[in-house]
Amino acid sequence: MDFFQCMSLNGARDLIVDNLAGIAVNSEIVHLSDALGRVVAENVMATEDLPPFSRSTVDGFAVRSADTFGANEASPALFMISGEVAMGKDSMIELQPGQAVAIPTGGMLPAGADAVVMLEYTEQHDASILMVLKMAAPRENVVSKGDDIEAGAVIVKQGQKLAAQHIGALASCGWSRIPVANRVEVAILSTGDELVDIHEPMQCGQIRDVNSYALGAMLSEIGCVVKRLGIVKDSFEQFCSALRTAVATCQLVVISGGSSVGIRDYTEAAISALGAPGVLIHGIAVKPGKPTIFGIVDSVPVFGLPGHPVAAMTVCQQLVKVAVGALMGQKQSVDTFGIPAVLTRNLPSVPGRDDFINVRLSKADGKYTATPILGKSGLISTMSEADGIVHITADKSGLYHGEMVEVLLSQKY
Amino acid sequence: MDFFQCMSLNGARDLIVDNLAGIAVNSEIVHLSDALGRVVAENVMATEDLPPFSRSTVDGFAVRSADTFGANEASPALFMISGEVAMGKDSMIELQPGQAVAIPTGGMLPAGADAVVMLEYTEQHDASILMVLKMAAPRENVVSKGDDIEAGAVIVKQGQKLAAQHIGALASCGWSRIPVANRVEVAILSTGDELVDIHEPMQCGQIRDVNSYALGAMLSEIGCVVKRLGIVKDSFEQFCSALRTAVATCQLVVISGGSSVGIRDYTEAAISALGAPGVLIHGIAVKPGKPTIFGIVDSVPVFGLPGHPVAAMTVCQQLVKVAVGALMGQKQSVDTFGIPAVLTRNLPSVPGRDDFINVRLSKADGKYTATPILGKSGLISTMSEADGIVHITADKSGLYHGEMVEVLLSQKY
Repeated sequence: MDFFQCMSLNGARDLIVDNLAGIAVNSEIVHLSDALGRVVAENVMATEDLPPFSRSTVDGFAVRSADTFGANEASPALFMISGEVAMGKDSMIELQPGQAVAIPTGGMLPAGADAVVMLEYTEQHDASILMVLKMAAPRENVVSKGDDIEAGAVIVKQGQKLAAQHIGALASCGWSRIPVANRVEVAILSTGDELVDIHEPMQCGQIRDVNSYALGAMLSEIGCVVKRLGIVKDSFEQFCSALRTAVATCQLVVISGGSSVGIRDYTEAAISALGAPGVLIHGIAVKPGKPTIFGIVDSVPVFGLPGHPVAAMTVCQQLVKVAVGALMGQKQSVDTFGIPAVLTRNLPSVPGRDDFINVRLSKADGKYTATPILGKSGLISTMSEADGIVHITADKSGLYHGEMVEVLLSQKY
Repeated sequence: MDFFQCMSLNGARDLIVDNLAGIAVNSEIVHLSDALGRVVAENVMATEDLPPFSRSTVDGFAVRSADTFGANEASPALFMISGEVAMGKDSMIELQPGQAVAIPTGGMLPAGADAVVMLEYTEQHDASILMVLKMAAPRENVVSKGDDIEAGAVIVKQGQKLAAQHIGALASCGWSRIPVANRVEVAILSTGDELVDIHEPMQCGQIRDVNSYALGAMLSEIGCVVKRLGIVKDSFEQFCSALRTAVATCQLVVISGGSSVGIRDYTEAAISALGAPGVLIHGIAVKPGKPTIFGIVDSVPVFGLPGHPVAAMTVCQQLVKVAVGALMGQKQSVDTFGIPAVLTRNLPSVPGRDDFINVRLSKADGKYTATPILGKSGLISTMSEADGIVHITADKSGLYHGEMVEVLLSQKY
């Protein structure tokens, strides 16, 4: 299989998004305190103005700004102190010309007032007379009703994955019940006669099942409910039976292939045997990750990923996450902001193929350098020691030493 | 309080780390499948070589490389096919000179062999005679025992927060039980007579409690167990009683102050009254975030954060996360890699103060621009619409339009 017969990375993404558009997961209502990291199922609008009333941003005196006209230290403006605003209470006062009202930070501006003079620019002559030593502009030290968010404005758009700042914005508008896409239930299967689980004693010739755990971690990190269905040995019957269970119980299936010859054919045959439309992608022009399979069985997307952990994780990052995002109606499911860095060595590639290379990032004098981690392809250590990956897009025949590249970070703090 | 009397951001970080060094949380053993995002409590070493035996990286024939010397299409080298390596099994064969053994990708290299010739470069004359059409170098298409990770090597260092690639590396070496720092139990209290919870009807003059939810989300995102203790009204007795409960039941306490005048004094007095050493920081030279308090009560760190959500979240990001990291023995707890971008307008600041400004990032032709989000300081919308923050360090008096800045991303995908 030549790379030119494979589907391009962008082609594969488009195909996945197009085919999953109609089979989104259901939505549910969760409490705001459980909504972090979930994808919002519909636009959420402000039902209240924020702030719900005009507030002072400082400790001081609410006044009519016009009454401070011309005030300075040499010739202060004089005011009658006509009361005090209590925190969290309606101010209940209607300010008359020449009057000032004591107000705390966050206090409600009384009717008639349009500015607050900071305490530092006032002197109290006695309990009732205030001297203002500085002119106040209209709305100075005031956040007006609705200045932050107006009632009716969209606070969070459908498809947004909720970060802490969105949780804050939703709280500020009194939203406690948030409509979010259901978590995607993902079945993970590993195949290969050579694989043993991490708990098992290992015989000569065997290796550990890495992908069940590494892919499980990647997918639970983005909010999936991961069901590890274990290791399937290289028999077509066992394989079909495991896949049938996976498709029946989950909304997405990820099989990572053992490295043995027959498995890839098994996977294709099993996907096509179990339901329509069957296999849609066999082979992608991505390194590492070429022997990737994608199909749909009765509205359940099924990925067949390479057995090599580095290749499996690369494709999981670049394609499986896109599928999970599509099922949840997520607007953005892969990183779009990478860190520009100077490459420290040549990286050959082949036009028509997307390459992903693990790199270490370092920083000196505000400049970043990206150093590819050497070693035979597919070594797990190249991945666990990496700060991020460099993407050589399909239009390039490689990247040169000294060239600017973009590094997508592997670890989120 | 002048910014110059406040503690610097770096000073505050150092003080926090120094004071929490001795009061780390305990550690526990978790299963690998539950270890994502946890901080490793001790160095984890490989007890097995990875791979545990020399493996073929291709489908082909295992040979002695010396026997292929001079082979090419015109004059192939001839081999006796002496068997086949089965996947996941000890090869059990000792290769003799002139012999070749069929081997699948991932198969165990037989004793005596030191290279694998890809299937594509061979022709099988009959069941027992193989023609090799290309020279093979020693170790060609072979990953040797221990090439990836050697037994005894440190796979993951103490203090590392586990990402998916570390989970993969641990699985590859057969680790199922991982020593990690306990999750930090954090109590969150909001104070202020003006605050109402998101479920409550709102009276005139009141606003929503944002910080309990926004700070709770930020801290649960980094693995804390968050206990929201609710809203405490502005009474010193109530405040002391709530703080006493928080300190007795959690390993870290975060109070976010109402904006009313007295609360800051309450917080300081209560922290000092409840236990030694009491308040260690009052005021930091950070905007937003100046009225921040930090103290320790009977080995429990207590933060008093500003009431404004944007200020509270900024300090949570810059200092509370550092404290959580210190309690867990984490090596790195704040982002160190930001995205270099061109600033689209002047940003004034004051030397001696660290400023954090919300920005939108955009990208054109591989170049990033950072556009500060305008609006009065402290508006929640400036935060929820931001892609990241720009940090103006204390040595600068501002940043200029066109200058290169670094953007720390707010949202992790």
